[in-house]
Amino acid sequence: MTVRIVVLGTGRIGEMHAELLAQQVSGAELAGVFDVTDSAAAVGSRLNCPVAASLEEALSIEADAVAICTSTDTHVDVMMAAAEADRAIFCEKPISLDLPTLDQGLAAVEKAGVFLQIGFNRRFDPSHEAVAQAVARGSVGDVHLCNIASRDPAPPPISYIETSGGIFCDMTIHDFDMARYVTGSEIETVYATGGVLVDPAIGDVGDVDTAVVVLRHENGALTTINNSRQAVYGYDQRVEAFGSAGMASSGNYHDSNSQVVTEQGFTSPPLQHFFIERYTASYLRQWQAFVDAVGSGGPSPVTGSDGRAPLVIGLAARKSLREGRPVTCAEIDPSS
Amino acid sequence: MTVRIVVLGTGRIGEMHAELLAQQVSGAELAGVFDVTDSAAAVGSRLNCPVAASLEEALSIEADAVAICTSTDTHVDVMMAAAEADRAIFCEKPISLDLPTLDQGLAAVEKAGVFLQIGFNRRFDPSHEAVAQAVARGSVGDVHLCNIASRDPAPPPISYIETSGGIFCDMTIHDFDMARYVTGSEIETVYATGGVLVDPAIGDVGDVDTAVVVLRHENGALTTINNSRQAVYGYDQRVEAFGSAGMASSGNYHDSNSQVVTEQGFTSPPLQHFFIERYTASYLRQWQAFVDAVGSGGPSPVTGSDGRAPLVIGLAARKSLREGRPVTCAEIDPSS
Amino acid sequence: MTVRIVVLGTGRIGEMHAELLAQQVSGAELAGVFDVTDSAAAVGSRLNCPVAASLEEALSIEADAVAICTSTDTHVDVMMAAAEADRAIFCEKPISLDLPTLDQGLAAVEKAGVFLQIGFNRRFDPSHEAVAQAVARGSVGDVHLCNIASRDPAPPPISYIETSGGIFCDMTIHDFDMARYVTGSEIETVYATGGVLVDPAIGDVGDVDTAVVVLRHENGALTTINNSRQAVYGYDQRVEAFGSAGMASSGNYHDSNSQVVTEQGFTSPPLQHFFIERYTASYLRQWQAFVDAVGSGGPSPVTGSDGRAPLVIGLAARKSLREGRPVTCAEIDPSS
Amino acid sequence: MTVRIVVLGTGRIGEMHAELLAQQVSGAELAGVFDVTDSAAAVGSRLNCPVAASLEEALSIEADAVAICTSTDTHVDVMMAAAEADRAIFCEKPISLDLPTLDQGLAAVEKAGVFLQIGFNRRFDPSHEAVAQAVARGSVGDVHLCNIASRDPAPPPISYIETSGGIFCDMTIHDFDMARYVTGSEIETVYATGGVLVDPAIGDVGDVDTAVVVLRHENGALTTINNSRQAVYGYDQRVEAFGSAGMASSGNYHDSNSQVVTEQGFTSPPLQHFFIERYTASYLRQWQAFVDAVGSGGPSPVTGSDGRAPLVIGLAARKSLREGRPVTCAEIDPSS
Repeated sequence: MTVRIVVLGTGRIGEMHAELLAQQVSGAELAGVFDVTDSAAAVGSRLNCPVAASLEEALSIEADAVAICTSTDTHVDVMMAAAEADRAIFCEKPISLDLPTLDQGLAAVEKAGVFLQIGFNRRFDPSHEAVAQAVARGSVGDVHLCNIASRDPAPPPISYIETSGGIFCDMTIHDFDMARYVTGSEIETVYATGGVLVDPAIGDVGDVDTAVVVLRHENGALTTINNSRQAVYGYDQRVEAFGSAGMASSGNYHDSNSQVVTEQGFTSPPLQHFFIERYTASYLRQWQAFVDAVGSGGPSPVTGSDGRAPLVIGLAARKSLREGRPVTCAEIDPSS
Repeated sequence: MTVRIVVLGTGRIGEMHAELLAQQVSGAELAGVFDVTDSAAAVGSRLNCPVAASLEEALSIEADAVAICTSTDTHVDVMMAAAEADRAIFCEKPISLDLPTLDQGLAAVEKAGVFLQIGFNRRFDPSHEAVAQAVARGSVGDVHLCNIASRDPAPPPISYIETSGGIFCDMTIHDFDMARYVTGSEIETVYATGGVLVDPAIGDVGDVDTAVVVLRHENGALTTINNSRQAVYGYDQRVEAFGSAGMASSGNYHDSNSQVVTEQGFTSPPLQHFFIERYTASYLRQWQAFVDAVGSGGPSPVTGSDGRAPLVIGLAARKSLREGRPVTCAEIDPSS
Repeated sequence: MTVRIVVLGTGRIGEMHAELLAQQVSGAELAGVFDVTDSAAAVGSRLNCPVAASLEEALSIEADAVAICTSTDTHVDVMMAAAEADRAIFCEKPISLDLPTLDQGLAAVEKAGVFLQIGFNRRFDPSHEAVAQAVARGSVGDVHLCNIASRDPAPPPISYIETSGGIFCDMTIHDFDMARYVTGSEIETVYATGGVLVDPAIGDVGDVDTAVVVLRHENGALTTINNSRQAVYGYDQRVEAFGSAGMASSGNYHDSNSQVVTEQGFTSPPLQHFFIERYTASYLRQWQAFVDAVGSGGPSPVTGSDGRAPLVIGLAARKSLREGRPVTCAEIDPSS
Repeated sequence: MTVRIVVLGTGRIGEMHAELLAQQVSGAELAGVFDVTDSAAAVGSRLNCPVAASLEEALSIEADAVAICTSTDTHVDVMMAAAEADRAIFCEKPISLDLPTLDQGLAAVEKAGVFLQIGFNRRFDPSHEAVAQAVARGSVGDVHLCNIASRDPAPPPISYIETSGGIFCDMTIHDFDMARYVTGSEIETVYATGGVLVDPAIGDVGDVDTAVVVLRHENGALTTINNSRQAVYGYDQRVEAFGSAGMASSGNYHDSNSQVVTEQGFTSPPLQHFFIERYTASYLRQWQAFVDAVGSGGPSPVTGSDGRAPLVIGLAARKSLREGRPVTCAEIDPSS
């Protein structure tokens, strides 16, 4: 069976998804593209697929699924329309920056009974996945500590940061997902602190660029996350799970796997800088998992609930930073 | 300018080239495909390009270049026809297993004045390239030693080995290319030894499956190569250049960049097993270099002469193994 | 000039110091040993030096310096006697678990004008030192983040833990020292959390065995520390300083520098388990620094103030853990 | 039981042995020292042991064993005298540069029935030992290839090289021992080549400074060795055994286990430069093995025959280099 997918939103990430679906995901067919800007026309022409003139038209293309890659503030509206149209849904993260809005979206999906997978692609990175699998099969024993270093090569434009919801809901949200994914345990308490050390303009729009978060899990495990908006040596992403029987960890890729050795020492190249390059395999495997699940009627590998929990944690982190104290998830969401 | 390329031969490697040209090489267009078997039809349909019914038809498609991916024994005939048709030529390695035949092909290319690039893709692997670049910019000083480990994950079928020309002309030929590429110095003398340690059936068809070769370069540097047809832990390819000012080296990629740590120690996954996976980046960059050179009228990054030298070395290695003594390249090719 | 040193306290660590001074520290002479137990006799006989019957006798041995290796609760009394006797002083960490007592000791030292070096040996580990030096010479730029993993191979006896002052003053105190040493910036605020995940008996005596601490430095940098009393794969000690221009980090030593590779992957041995083995070089270089400073009249590389600050941080961490909130150093010590 | 050992020859290596025996080898006692120069007096005084005025006097000191650390050309004479005196013998490598002389020494030892251990210390390096043990327990399967990189940080004085017996009997002899030790299989054929690339003065005294050797083992395995007298980045010693079931390898130690990361890449320090520093653990463990074997009456871990085989290989390598062809060990020693 071929899963026909319409890509909604053809910005940088949407275009990448469309290309993967058209060329590299076996069992997938790019059934159409749509964007509120002109960008869809070029993508459709290059990838040889229909271009819809409106969301309505996009949802009337004969297809099995949609990929929601529009701007974050429109995710839930599009999700509700897609659910109504009975499409299986892939939605980029974060679902929404507002919890009640997010819940509206999930309710619509549940009511319609459609499939939903959230775009936490790092779960499909072979290295991070190996950590989660080692924990799941017991190689690490009970997890006691989880440590995540997550640093971007360079800050995004200030205009982006202004509407991003802040570092915790924009960038750290991936790490909150990793903490849940790798340990298999929910978060109870969040302590966050941070500062403006990279660029004062980030502080001017009310955000921090350097942050540390401590999470206490339901099972007693503790996670530390350290973030920076600027690692001059490349995109640095490491996850480590430590427990009663050992440790599992994931690392980075260098520009090449080589070293030059002189009297001064052994030097290997900096890390890959671009997130699409770093996470190519994860994006491809994310789609493969989507197509396999939708095609076979299997369960979603990243559910709506997996999309909701990191937002609650992110909102708790934001509150913790502001109030200078640990904040429980229950303070943000009594149902947590 | 777009470089239009017809792929001749759509076996495993030809299909991969066609796919890269159709989808990932910027500035390239897949202008058509041809194969003596049925395989071309499926490839052409999937990649949406014309399928030629004969070599003549393939060479009459309006195009700038051809990729010769047919069986080795037909390379030179196809090359001569393509030169006649005034196409820029990409030719898979080895050009031929017979030196006079190879020379006929190169003569035809020279006479026609067409561009020729040989498919020694490892030169475009970012890690091996970093070694060559470190040598070229003087970081290693004068090269004294070059050491190459080159081991396949598993032997090819015996039927393939039978017509392969033997391990030195089939497998080690890549390492001979690396030795010239990395050191920038020609080979004068070859000592080769080997044995049948992996599979007796390989010995039955007159080949060895485990080999060691020592090369003496014109500049006095010494290269060692060690080969095995079977490394159970994956595709193992390492190059090291050592000299008066230091060392440069390239390494492998693991299935993932992760480790699991227990009381027993630190374990990371085996190496990637499949050569297309291991060398994806090199194949793409090889095409990019071809398209850039053909498009701009620049020189070939891997010339006919670069395709010829490793065959001479391979034939010397074969003779050395048989006769149990070092053999000079001049014994094989008085012009060396 | 030879620096003559009397070792006071010949338990495990005192005996090690005596042996280093007698055999391996150039410019040092082991002038005598003393202990309240019988242990001194055997040490003195083996290392061929006088054995004092009392502290008074030990301080009357003709010598330049003493090494205080007695139990923590006696450090300050011995320090005051040694200051009175005009000896240069090496004192094991922590100076005291009680801040006023500690201050009494430092006051006596200052009044007597004697040299004092505190036994924070990790500063002399070549790997951790390389991190501090990279920061000091500006290779990392301004430090934004410091991350410390510090895990023992196995918990000490419960009887030891009972009188240890708790994990923060006993074990993490080394990490507090590292945070100050590596970043070169004082601590303002401490957030600590932890749990009993390794052994319930540790909880029974009121301590935790797994902990995470976040430090905010005066210069805005943030340090995370993660501790465990039990890493089954060995003694795990890593320090990383990240900043505007890059990163510096230190790592561990394995039982041997080897790997075994099979179809299952690449395995290297576990880490060294014993702290004396892990830190041999640091203990030797610590003594060399002491002898050099005392011999030349130079300044102490690890001052009384360097011994005091980590206790303040440790006490703040203990309070933070109890009260579930960040605690400032000023709350513990108004002079901070 | 304590094994009392007299050290004969207190040059650099003899002094190191005396110090280890006096201070760090449990179950050993330094019973005396002797040297034809004045050096013994200072060593004896520092380590608090008798200093013999002659070899005869040294052999009359009440002791169980001797360590022969005199110049190579005197080894066999001293060995014969020590055997006569019924001492267990430790003898530095090489036993002799002359095969008949060496055989005389071994015959005397056999006749006297005394214990003999040859100083191939690298067998006791934990990393190289781990490779041999992995092979011995079958983790690597049948060994097919063994690759040894062995490079000194800097050439010895020309005066030393002149009487060293040449690179193969002086430096590569350790690698020949490693090849036998790690694979567990004898050598049949040797091909050696080399050049003068580091210092023309080395060529002037008839030696090479850069060399490659290929060994064919009895069991069909092939070993490559690459040597340089000068690796500017430190003492580089790596052994790799590759076989039907995998690979085992040993590596080097850096000056510290740290790295500095900038926009330019990841840099770790050069390798340890001094052989005593690099091989400290091996020297200590070598003595522990000697003391344990002599004390318990167990077999020698490195026999006279283990001392003889590498000389035969070294002489074959020298002949191969001169004659430009593979040479069998049987050509050097018909009994091989």
